[in-house]
Amino acid sequence: MAAQDNSEIEALIALMAKLPGLGPRSARRAVLHLIRKRALVLTPLADAMGRVAETARECLNCGNVGTSDICALCADETRANGELCVVEDVADLWAMERAGVFKGRYHVLGGTLSALDAVGPEDLRIPRLVDRVATEGVNEVILALNATIDGQTTAHYIADQLEGRVKLTSLAQGVPIGGELDYLDDGTISAALRARKEI
Amino acid sequence: MAAQDNSEIEALIALMAKLPGLGPRSARRAVLHLIRKRALVLTPLADAMGRVAETARECLNCGNVGTSDICALCADETRANGELCVVEDVADLWAMERAGVFKGRYHVLGGTLSALDAVGPEDLRIPRLVDRVATEGVNEVILALNATIDGQTTAHYIADQLEGRVKLTSLAQGVPIGGELDYLDDGTISAALRARKEI
Repeated sequence: MAAQDNSEIEALIALMAKLPGLGPRSARRAVLHLIRKRALVLTPLADAMGRVAETARECLNCGNVGTSDICALCADETRANGELCVVEDVADLWAMERAGVFKGRYHVLGGTLSALDAVGPEDLRIPRLVDRVATEGVNEVILALNATIDGQTTAHYIADQLEGRVKLTSLAQGVPIGGELDYLDDGTISAALRARKEI
Repeated sequence: MAAQDNSEIEALIALMAKLPGLGPRSARRAVLHLIRKRALVLTPLADAMGRVAETARECLNCGNVGTSDICALCADETRANGELCVVEDVADLWAMERAGVFKGRYHVLGGTLSALDAVGPEDLRIPRLVDRVATEGVNEVILALNATIDGQTTAHYIADQLEGRVKLTSLAQGVPIGGELDYLDDGTISAALRARKEI
């Protein structure tokens, strides 16, 4: 970057390079693109970022990201159907919503339990989850945690906490739609075989 | 994105997804990261973008990107050593500057001639280049254009325009440093063989 007299452009590149999925090279490319399309892209993007920086916050109830203290999903009474889907992360909530089949409410943990990283139940939204189950008329908690060691450990912990109070389910494991057996790992194949069903 | 009540976050994701190197999925990931690190990343990034949107402009002389009408490279008198390096793009200028060996000035064309895309000499900074050669005391023009068909066509056109007025050179073609013959294309190998030199 020795070429650049202009510390502002350099500063922007350095900030962009910190985004997930971008490195120094792609950040430079993105910034050049932004400068070329100043009116069309850069100004609207700067404005949109400013607005989101001012308004974005976590929903106090479920941990979803929104622009008000209680997110639209928690505010929507038609969603209070007694089903509560527990996810690790807002990205997982968005993925579930894109699938468009779940009509209940969510609870975003904000991570997984991890002994290595010293993440305990209090660091996640697990106490709040136990509260919600008691007060929101929940009759089924769907544990939609990632199928990783940490995700499954967290699911077991939550199941222990809620046992006897509510129906607990988890997402089915098996062959993904469009998946080819040849490319699947052994764990998935044996899980799919164990959970086989009559047709 | 059905999950998002908040049109502002959606708008930001849509804008980010237009950046080169980012798609809808990585834009979502980047925006979530930004929202999580609001104070640390999002606010400074919005500010930096706003500043660049206000101040960034193209150098009227060479086409480099900077924060003043004449960029630092054109303003620097020690750079007026009679060498003028012609590049396609600001990204190429930055790449040359990172290498740190060229001490002259640059001229950014802003693209290549292309019959298919109807890009003619007037759409690039070729007339301005001819002017600069006449007025800036240039004694060598280095054509550092990409080794693509369009780049080489443009180099030929510029060479025609400047023939007899100035010494014309181009970057050497051959095996890249650290390159393995086994992975090189035939064109590069034959160019390197033709341009072989005694050691």
